[in-house]
Amino acid sequence: MFIGAQVSLYPMTSDFVGVILTALDALSPYRSDLRIETDDISTLMVGAPEPLIDAVRDLFAAAARRPDHVTMHVTLSRGCPGEPDDPSCHCEALARAQDLPLAERQRLAREAVAAAPQIGVGINLQFSLYVLGQDRHMDEIYGCIDFLKASGTFLKSKNFCTRLRGDAGAVFETLRQAFLRFGPAEGHVTIDLTASANSPSLA
Amino acid sequence: MFIGAQVSLYPMTSDFVGVILTALDALSPYRSDLRIETDDISTLMVGAPEPLIDAVRDLFAAAARRPDHVTMHVTLSRGCPGEPDDPSCHCEALARAQDLPLAERQRLAREAVAAAPQIGVGINLQFSLYVLGQDRHMDEIYGCIDFLKASGTFLKSKNFCTRLRGDAGAVFETLRQAFLRFGPAEGHVTIDLTASANSPSLA
Repeated sequence: MFIGAQVSLYPMTSDFVGVILTALDALSPYRSDLRIETDDISTLMVGAPEPLIDAVRDLFAAAARRPDHVTMHVTLSRGCPGEPDDPSCHCEALARAQDLPLAERQRLAREAVAAAPQIGVGINLQFSLYVLGQDRHMDEIYGCIDFLKASGTFLKSKNFCTRLRGDAGAVFETLRQAFLRFGPAEGHVTIDLTASANSPSLA
Repeated sequence: MFIGAQVSLYPMTSDFVGVILTALDALSPYRSDLRIETDDISTLMVGAPEPLIDAVRDLFAAAARRPDHVTMHVTLSRGCPGEPDDPSCHCEALARAQDLPLAERQRLAREAVAAAPQIGVGINLQFSLYVLGQDRHMDEIYGCIDFLKASGTFLKSKNFCTRLRGDAGAVFETLRQAFLRFGPAEGHVTIDLTASANSPSLA
């Protein structure tokens, strides 16, 4: 299994370099658990979903604590057949959860969101879940959407994606549950997400 | 068939509202051909791939002509089973091209990129192509990657995505060809893309 993300942080301020550098401090606790490589468009993070999603959440929360409008784009992927197996990506939760029927996975996902830590930063997020390499991919998508609607972070459905809103802790836990508990355990699943904070359009 | 995009433009300047409003003028020629709806995270554009990709290209090129660093995220989708059929999305090229064998589709795609207009704005872009709802989705992905490597805009492969670089005309034509000529004509295909211009990391 290979699990990782391409992450880009976009502060809408002329001091965008300063905001990015400050926010990068939030990754320090995760650097030993993740492989991290940066180029001019995005930062690759490879590792298990626990530190991976926590790191992405804390990076965005650190930037969102500043007053400036900031967004983040993340491409999350697990099980891509074109990537090598990586022991650091082993995910016990993924393997265990997926023997269960859909209703049970939805229940576990809701419980995980209810138990998420409060980060103290309100965010907006939208994402698309892609379950690849199987004929009946929409069954898992619709099952995930049912979970999202009961997650407490659901805002609305949009074309091609779903909007979430709430504390960064609950929102990113919702995202992690969608990523892990829907689609086959050994399958190829990706998420395309955009997070936003301090948007003047909401003022 | 339902074809559209969720588009977000991110100017890394404190005058980001001004840059966005100026760039939106570039959409004027396309407003009669596309359905366009905006909220605080993204702008939905629905329509056939010809005006759709041209509009996205011209929007980004207009912002990239300014000196500030700017990025754009786009989620492109065609044939999503959860979306209603929309006559405005009819795409003759899509239906015609897809009866052809892979090698012929790759040739037509290369020719289209070679014939793309010169926009006069150099950009970087990375994207992931997702072919959903079929067992052998990686065959079409690998076929697309072969086209990309011969497109003239290929920069490098990254985990989960491919980097393109060049004039906005050729780069967005490469993207349109990847979107239209790979994966089944009536299938569910999506693209997750990030474009970047004027990055200080490249200076």
